[in-house]
Amino acid sequence: MKTNPGRFFEDYRVGETIRHAVPRTLLGGEKALYHALYPARHAVHSSDDFAARCGLAGPFDDLITFHTVFGKTVPDISLNAIANLGYAEGRWRRPVYPGDTLTATSEVIGLKQNSNGNSGVVWVRTTGRNQRSEAVLDYVRWVMVRKGDTGAPAPETVVPELSAVVAPETLSVPNGLTFDGYDFELAGEPHRWRDYTIGEKIDHVDRVTIEEAEHMMATRLWQNTAKVHFDATNREDGKRLIYGGHVISLARALSFNGLANVQLLAGLNGGSHAAPCFAGDTISAWSEVLDKVETGVPGVGALRLRLVAQKAEAEPFGLKGEDGKYAPGVLLDLDYWGLIPT
Amino acid sequence: MKTNPGRFFEDYRVGETIRHAVPRTLLGGEKALYHALYPARHAVHSSDDFAARCGLAGPFDDLITFHTVFGKTVPDISLNAIANLGYAEGRWRRPVYPGDTLTATSEVIGLKQNSNGNSGVVWVRTTGRNQRSEAVLDYVRWVMVRKGDTGAPAPETVVPELSAVVAPETLSVPNGLTFDGYDFELAGEPHRWRDYTIGEKIDHVDRVTIEEAEHMMATRLWQNTAKVHFDATNREDGKRLIYGGHVISLARALSFNGLANVQLLAGLNGGSHAAPCFAGDTISAWSEVLDKVETGVPGVGALRLRLVAQKAEAEPFGLKGEDGKYAPGVLLDLDYWGLIPT
Amino acid sequence: MKTNPGRFFEDYRVGETIRHAVPRTLLGGEKALYHALYPARHAVHSSDDFAARCGLAGPFDDLITFHTVFGKTVPDISLNAIANLGYAEGRWRRPVYPGDTLTATSEVIGLKQNSNGNSGVVWVRTTGRNQRSEAVLDYVRWVMVRKGDTGAPAPETVVPELSAVVAPETLSVPNGLTFDGYDFELAGEPHRWRDYTIGEKIDHVDRVTIEEAEHMMATRLWQNTAKVHFDATNREDGKRLIYGGHVISLARALSFNGLANVQLLAGLNGGSHAAPCFAGDTISAWSEVLDKVETGVPGVGALRLRLVAQKAEAEPFGLKGEDGKYAPGVLLDLDYWGLIPT
Repeated sequence: MKTNPGRFFEDYRVGETIRHAVPRTLLGGEKALYHALYPARHAVHSSDDFAARCGLAGPFDDLITFHTVFGKTVPDISLNAIANLGYAEGRWRRPVYPGDTLTATSEVIGLKQNSNGNSGVVWVRTTGRNQRSEAVLDYVRWVMVRKGDTGAPAPETVVPELSAVVAPETLSVPNGLTFDGYDFELAGEPHRWRDYTIGEKIDHVDRVTIEEAEHMMATRLWQNTAKVHFDATNREDGKRLIYGGHVISLARALSFNGLANVQLLAGLNGGSHAAPCFAGDTISAWSEVLDKVETGVPGVGALRLRLVAQKAEAEPFGLKGEDGKYAPGVLLDLDYWGLIPT
Repeated sequence: MKTNPGRFFEDYRVGETIRHAVPRTLLGGEKALYHALYPARHAVHSSDDFAARCGLAGPFDDLITFHTVFGKTVPDISLNAIANLGYAEGRWRRPVYPGDTLTATSEVIGLKQNSNGNSGVVWVRTTGRNQRSEAVLDYVRWVMVRKGDTGAPAPETVVPELSAVVAPETLSVPNGLTFDGYDFELAGEPHRWRDYTIGEKIDHVDRVTIEEAEHMMATRLWQNTAKVHFDATNREDGKRLIYGGHVISLARALSFNGLANVQLLAGLNGGSHAAPCFAGDTISAWSEVLDKVETGVPGVGALRLRLVAQKAEAEPFGLKGEDGKYAPGVLLDLDYWGLIPT
Repeated sequence: MKTNPGRFFEDYRVGETIRHAVPRTLLGGEKALYHALYPARHAVHSSDDFAARCGLAGPFDDLITFHTVFGKTVPDISLNAIANLGYAEGRWRRPVYPGDTLTATSEVIGLKQNSNGNSGVVWVRTTGRNQRSEAVLDYVRWVMVRKGDTGAPAPETVVPELSAVVAPETLSVPNGLTFDGYDFELAGEPHRWRDYTIGEKIDHVDRVTIEEAEHMMATRLWQNTAKVHFDATNREDGKRLIYGGHVISLARALSFNGLANVQLLAGLNGGSHAAPCFAGDTISAWSEVLDKVETGVPGVGALRLRLVAQKAEAEPFGLKGEDGKYAPGVLLDLDYWGLIPT
């Protein structure tokens, strides 16, 4: 048997480190493609000139880093996954630049067999590194994975303790980043860190209807190989499930309208893919300011934001029902730290 | 309110200059994407080697410049536009190269409230500049814009005087451009400036059926944010209107077959988007030679061309009916100056 | 008449060399686009770092070379083709790198009018060259071409003698290629040359459903202008035929799962596009090891592989029926030499 059937629940051991295959060089064409796939306009990633005035040499959008690292993990972590359950403790450590080559490893940090005996939850801490072995991103993800052999014994249950929020003092501000001389007019909006208040909600107004070709091209670009995204014969209903990361990128791009100056992502506190998304869905997005702190770097503030993507027909700001469940039409509930001029 | 509702008719003042947001670095991946989105084959933009022999260092297709500059203007000029009415006095001033960063400004040069009091026409002269603040393109565009407050007083009417045709002696021939040693066989056709006659019409033969994913990817690539192109819930009929510039690029690419040696665009005399275009439409194109002049540069001639895009089912060369209106199926009537070896 | 109607059968002469138009610079954005269009994961083309450790400076996927050269030939060879009949004697001579400019020429090496008098078979040997005029690829292709004037006299029949298999000792191993220090874990699979046996068959497991936008973008990227791929009004059934090369790239990418270490293509022995492919089809792939030889370069082995693409509903490994005809659902039967660590 020369093909990779993927790992099953019983194939993971707490403490083992999986070295994911196929390093990827992001040569630069990904920038154009990212702009073609998402309505991205954040100035640091749109303009090398603008980035240079912020002390950065034309970095990739932080979500390109996330998707590329995530894609590496799919064949080892989520090929037989039933569900992607959550994210925690994500930190963008260092920007990625055209020409950088990314690799990824994952350490298994938790295992818990489900009571049905057919599946279990696997927690991994994934680290993406550049060609100099410098960490560019790490995050915890947990997924529910099928058992291959339901008779395999249950492992000792280990549930990692995870922070509900990345402590803001542990966020990495890229070396050299400065918002002195930041041009708000050129960036697209006047609103700065001090203009946002905790609890404030912003409807990002714009909407995008998704096509099959777009989400498949995006998902392939990150070498994410999960069958459900590409193979219309995989599900009984003949639908192709859209990669949750596609919805993240779409919502983040839409958030420009109201959060144009949140230029960089620094922390991923958590995230739920609340419902499946399919081609033909029209997506809107809104954000809520959950917290705000200053970073150690003068002029650089951090906003903790909830970013919600939902179907156009869903109520704006109607996140959950009285039963505590996500309201119909809510697709994504993402909790992150972003960097913005104070 | 942190999101941008766009400007309404009463928000414009004659004489003001609007500095558009979000500069854009065209790193180079746009070249591959442009070839994927359009059947482009003009040799100067297909081959850096061919371009070098013409004295140019691998410039972008002139329409990439146009779309990028146009895209910058959308949030300020046409977000609340009812119709894009026309173009005039467009000049490509200087080629754009991989690595260049473009910004755009628009001066309001005319205003005229409609008699219904609900909307008005806004004329702007837009200038695109590279990172050295050199003009790369300027053109006049006028759009019909909704009023936000119908009670706002009508501005003094100012209708700019616009040239019907860009005077050929004012066209910019790129520094260093030479067609000495031009290889017609490699360029794809033997026809040169002297082979075209005024009044000559050319059916470009090839046809392309447009998909939703393609026109949205193209339009996003230029950071054009107009809702009608992306949001299937925006129009009552559930259709997404195709960006007029997508039709321009498609028709220009199709025009290779008969105008392969018109390598560069120099002037935009005018243009009408005669009818809306939607995914599923199959587009054909034809051209008419309207005028021909020599430029000040030996060996470089200019053809004034009418480029018409229409649905496949429309009659070739049937531009307008006896009533002077565009014939059914005509989508685009563009009037431009192109440069070609004499 | 300024447009190119394409050549008809009577327009070819044995011995003539056709210099194809429109050179193409592959600047690098094609790498990102290729990964977006196909689930490509072979490490040499995914990572410049991995490639460097193999002695190569980040070459393009060999099929990018093939498609680019092939695309150049379409306006002169297959614009009026009824069918693409076969390939033979293909050799990748030299890798192509970002920044290279490709041109192509074809020598007519055979002609045979069909007995119906309306068409005939044309054999050409096509050579692709880089900007230093070094051959990067050559191959023989034969196509059935319509006659424009059925009264034109039949040419003398010349049927070239073609090798059934490219002699392995004539394959080009790229200068500097080394698999010493090859990292199998990073490449994605442990299987090396010595692990494959002649007659072994591998089901590549993964499947992809094709969209119109994807195959048209891919085919345009290679400047392939054949009408049938783009124009829904061209065929009576309103379908757009998918470029056979799109199916080749898709199948080759799928073959990663089982053949991850076959990093480079060296020879094209033959190939049949057994049935037309259309958008909406879900494609799977399998391979058969036809032969294995060592090359002159230590550590570099060659596998002769049959790569079959078929519709998802077709039987795995059911290539042909008892009647010798391709089984229903088989789309592609490709015979090539690939290079793999011994």
